Order: sequence, then C-alpha cells, then structure tokens
Amino acid sequence: MPDHNQEQPPKRTDVNELGEFGLIDHLTQNFPLCNPSSLKGIGDDAAVIDNGNLLTVVSTDLLVEGIHFDLMYSPLKHLGYKSIVVNLSDIYAMNAHPKQVTVSIALSNRFSVEALEELYAGIRAACEYYQVDLVGGDTTSSPRGLIISVTAIGQGEKEKLAYRNGAKVGDLICISGNLGAAYLGLQILEREKQLYLSDPNIQPDLEGQDFLIGRILKPEARKDMIEMFAKNKLVPTAMIDISDGLSSDLLHICQQSGVGAIIEESGVPIHPDAQLQAINFQLDPITCALSGGEDYELLFTIHPNDIDKVKYLPDIYIAGEIVAATEGVKLHTKGGNIHDIKAQGWQHFGLSKPEGEQG
Amino acid sequence: MPDHNQEQPPKRTDVNELGEFGLIDHLTQNFPLCNPSSLKGIGDDAAVIDNGNLLTVVSTDLLVEGIHFDLMYSPLKHLGYKSIVVNLSDIYAMNAHPKQVTVSIALSNRFSVEALEELYAGIRAACEYYQVDLVGGDTTSSPRGLIISVTAIGQGEKEKLAYRNGAKVGDLICISGNLGAAYLGLQILEREKQLYLSDPNIQPDLEGQDFLIGRILKPEARKDMIEMFAKNKLVPTAMIDISDGLSSDLLHICQQSGVGAIIEESGVPIHPDAQLQAINFQLDPITCALSGGEDYELLFTIHPNDIDKVKYLPDIYIAGEIVAATEGVKLHTKGGNIHDIKAQGWQHFGLSKPEGEQG
Repeated sequence: MPDHNQEQPPKRTDVNELGEFGLIDHLTQNFPLCNPSSLKGIGDDAAVIDNGNLLTVVSTDLLVEGIHFDLMYSPLKHLGYKSIVVNLSDIYAMNAHPKQVTVSIALSNRFSVEALEELYAGIRAACEYYQVDLVGGDTTSSPRGLIISVTAIGQGEKEKLAYRNGAKVGDLICISGNLGAAYLGLQILEREKQLYLSDPNIQPDLEGQDFLIGRILKPEARKDMIEMFAKNKLVPTAMIDISDGLSSDLLHICQQSGVGAIIEESGVPIHPDAQLQAINFQLDPITCALSGGEDYELLFTIHPNDIDKVKYLPDIYIAGEIVAATEGVKLHTKGGNIHDIKAQGWQHFGLSKPEGEQG
Repeated sequence: MPDHNQEQPPKRTDVNELGEFGLIDHLTQNFPLCNPSSLKGIGDDAAVIDNGNLLTVVSTDLLVEGIHFDLMYSPLKHLGYKSIVVNLSDIYAMNAHPKQVTVSIALSNRFSVEALEELYAGIRAACEYYQVDLVGGDTTSSPRGLIISVTAIGQGEKEKLAYRNGAKVGDLICISGNLGAAYLGLQILEREKQLYLSDPNIQPDLEGQDFLIGRILKPEARKDMIEMFAKNKLVPTAMIDISDGLSSDLLHICQQSGVGAIIEESGVPIHPDAQLQAINFQLDPITCALSGGEDYELLFTIHPNDIDKVKYLPDIYIAGEIVAATEGVKLHTKGGNIHDIKAQGWQHFGLSKPEGEQG
C-alpha cells in the first residue's frame, strides 16, 4: 500500500522557500485560460467573467483556525461577520458590487449548534448590512478546528472595473482611511492572551482600546467608497484592498502595472489611537501602517486630472505618486530620508509579525 | 480574557443531532434573498445568478483530509483531479456548462512543493479535459493536514436549467450509469490500508480491481450526458448528481418536487465487478448502489413523452417512475418486495458507512 506522504520524489522543496505569493504563482503558471468568458484569472483581487452584459467578479478566501483567527479572542459572531467582509472587500477593490456569497464550513465536534448559530448570526449581519445573498455552501466535519471558505460573487461594468495593472506614471496614490490600527489591535489581544494564559485570574485590560480592537475583530469593507466613485464619476486607474499591509499591496500594483511609486510618510493616515499604542509598544507608527495589514481600506491610483474629484472628500488621503519603474518603490519619511519599500518591511524595520498571521 | 470555546451558552446541542443536511438548513433558514439576480439560493446542486442574458451557476465544495480523502491511498494527482470533477459534476447536474474554477488550499508544512505540484498536475489535467479555466484561489497554511476548497462557475440557458424541484407525477426516473462501484472501491482500499497498518510488509492485493478503484479515486463528471441532452433537445424535468447515494439523492428530488417515487431494483445499473465484489464483502449489491455514493452519475427525471429520446441511448437506464407524494419513495425488489427508501438506507440494511465518508 503506497503511502504518498512518504513516497515523495527525491527532491523536496519546503513551501516556505517560495513564500505565499511565490507558491501560488509557481503552482498556477501552466494554466492558460481557454474560455473567452474568462477575462481575468489569477493575480487580481478577484476573477472576472464576461457574461456578454455585466461582468461577474468572483473572489474566494479560506480562513483556518490557528492561522487566520484565534477563538481565544475572536467571538464567533464577529468571526462570521469578518469572514464575509474580507471577501466583499476584494469585490469592492475591483470597483464592483458584491451580490452573492457562498459559505462552506468544516468543524470539529467541539463546536455546538449554538456556537454555529453565533457564527451564522455574524454572517447574516454582514449579508444584511452589505445587501448580499447567501446562495450556497455546506457544512462538513473537520478532524480539528474550524475552517471557513467564502466565495463572493459581484457584478461590475466593463469600463468601470479597476484592476491592479492600470496605474500610470503621474497617477496619484490614494488611501481610503487610516492604517495600522488592526495590527495594533491584534497586538493588544495577543498581549492579553499571553497574560491570561500565564494567569487565568488576570482580567483583560482593554480600557479605551475599542477603536483598535474593533479594527481587527470587526472590520468593514469600503462599500461607501465604491458608491462615492460612481456618484463622482471617478474610475480609479488601479485598485487593491489593503489586507497584507500598504507595502505589500502597493508592490502588487507597481509590479502588475510596471511602475514605481513614491509614498510620503506625512500622507499616510494613522489614527491617533494607533499612534499612541504604537509608541506604547515601542513600534514606529509608519511601520505598523506599512506592514500591519488587515485594515481593509482601499489603495487606489487616479489620473491627476481627477484630483478635484477626491480633494475635498473626507476619508480620502493622497499619499504619493506613481513614478517610473526605474525609480523603484520608495518611502519619503517626515525626517527627509528615502527608504525602499519592501513586501516584508517588518523584517527590515525590526518588527515581528504577530503569531499566526499570513505574510 | 474570554475563551469562547468554554463560554458556551447554557444549551449545547451536538451538531450530529441535526445531521449534515439538517444542520445547514437550520443555520441558513433566516437568509432571505434580496438581490433580483439571485435566482436560486441554497438547496440545489448550485446557486443560480441572473446576468440578464445567460445564467451563472456556482457550486462550491470543501474537501478536508481525514474526512473526505485519505492520503494513504489517494495519490495527490488523483485527488487534484477529483476535487475539480466533483464540483463540475454539480454544474452539469444543473444542465449547465462549467467554465471557470477557483481553488484554495490550506496545508501543513509536511507537504513539499513537489507534492503540491502533483496535486496541481491533477487539477490541470481536469481543467484541460473539461475545458475549464482556473481563475482564482490561493494557498495558505494549516496547522494540520490538507484542505481543498473549490468553487466552480458555469453558464446555462434560462429555459434549460434543471433544478431538483421540477419532477412531476408520471415522469420517468433515469440514471446515467452504474452505481455502487465507488463505494466498493473504497471498501477495497480501506481493507488494504488496515492490512498494511497491521503489517507494512504486506503488499496490496488490488489485482483485477482497476474498475472499482478507478471509480473512487478518479471519477469523471458526465459532461457527455449534458452534451447529449443538448443534441437531442432533451431537458430533464429535475436533475441531481449522485454523490451521496441513489437513496439520498432521489429523496432530495422527491422532497423538493413534492412527489414520491418507485424504483425497480432490476432497473438500477450495477457493474458486474461491483456485483461480484459486493458478494465477496457479504453485502447486497443494491444496497451499495442505493447508499454508497460518490459515483457522480446523474439522476434525472424526464417527461414520459421524451422516452424515445433516451430509450435507445447507451448509458441511460430507466430505473423507475415519479408517483404522488402520498405513495412515498419505495424500492420494488427483484423478489417482489416493497421497501421504503430512506436517506440513510445503510443503517436499515445493516451496512456500515466507510470511515470518514460523509452522510
């Protein structure tokens, strides 16, 4: 009886050598698209399918307990809500409107029906708030832990979809809201978890941290921003949602658009609570904004002629400019220094990623 | 620090009390559809979305190591192939054509890049054979084991889609091919696994079992059948793919159509190898066909006027007739007896389900 876990080919490459993005690129490099309706495959926030009329936009995410969430501090209702929101965020990041979701869950028998009802109450709250329909999925067993798989399906207009590859030299780089707070909220929860594990009698000290903890446990997707784009007849030249951190997500746009970028530290919005908490943790606030991730704000580029459409709007911050690829992707600090922006900025800034978070 | 695993509400209902279908029904009962484009939500082989022109059909599946597959006897390439096929089968079961898939995988670090290449080689082989495009998905970590999440997206014409709820009294019940073989193939693999675990020097005895083992490890979806329907201008009144067993899947059609059914044992196709192997395992072949599952044949009903369209075609078996709901769902045995068909027929027939298989 062959055991295929033992009978590996002689060469064994550890998956970590390629990294998350390297691995999926490597595995999917030999998949040409054959159907004319497949307008966009792997490599953007969502796949794009042509129906002859409106486009269908599809995004999917797999959330694994112990990797993407920790039930020690994530209430199941919040987790259900967030699992929908992070997928809707991918649809909005295409400048499209989510309409349907499917949710499949695998769970071990440590979960009761009542616990699942909490999870689905959160899913329902998100479906209601964002006006999307739950149209499919199933529940199944898992030998250990909880796994949530969500697929979001949206509609968009052909000439309005915003891909990652449309940024041009001279475009302005915009951010829809403050960054770094979700990362700092997670650091607070991790600190309290460690204290609790060391002494279960210690009560959590979350006083005054509602904003930061809310950003990690119950993020929202920027539906309002997409509606504002439509109202102001603005179509971003490129767009992505900030799930991995400003550095990593800006690099996705730059690589796919074949351009460089310069970001002004003074133009990156950071909430006062995040500023304060970063200093408490002896972290540089801009590092948290660049590398933290999970803020689910939108990062987008606009043609300079469109500046008047965003200039006086609240919630939109102009953080920099697209430059030639040869100029690289750089941060211009408040102190007047220039740093290269790297996908894993946290390695270079001496900031360690929280346990269990994906790069 | 609240631990939400410990802080359950006072009432604790075990998920097994509701069963797989009961659980998803229970959890999703308060999800009304709000978008006009959501034509069909939970409860069929796939969700159906209106794009004003063609319909988009979406199906999703979550495959968990130790529950849905066992890497002791599932080569990764076969597993990749099967993970696509089982989803495409759901799209065909709507009488629609799959066009795109997304694949997300979560895996522990025991898997090498080379192992994943094998998995993706199987995924690619299925994509090529069925002419579907891989358009999205990602890879992520898992604390233990391999999890595969596949979403299939297809296109169908409004007047040709076959739902589960369209069967009418007098319709003929048809099956696209032989049943029970996948279940018996799994029993052989389980037997050899147990022998191997008891003594690793024992070589597996799979001589002459290619057909049965092929049915469980590398099933095919009935694309040819959908093409034949189109060619012969046949639209089934109801259709489902046989993934859970003829009993369970026939009951889905009957419940959703509000009808009963009578199945003739003599009309249920069983391959000679399956007949023989069932007897070797001291099982009743018809029980394996009714309750085994994973054959991925199509079960469909046709208007009696359409009988000439299927009568002389190979691979289509007329197995019974739709009757009034008050007559129940029954099996007419070769010996002249009448049995109730139940979803978990294996409990009543004294047949135990293979370990790890879902109900």
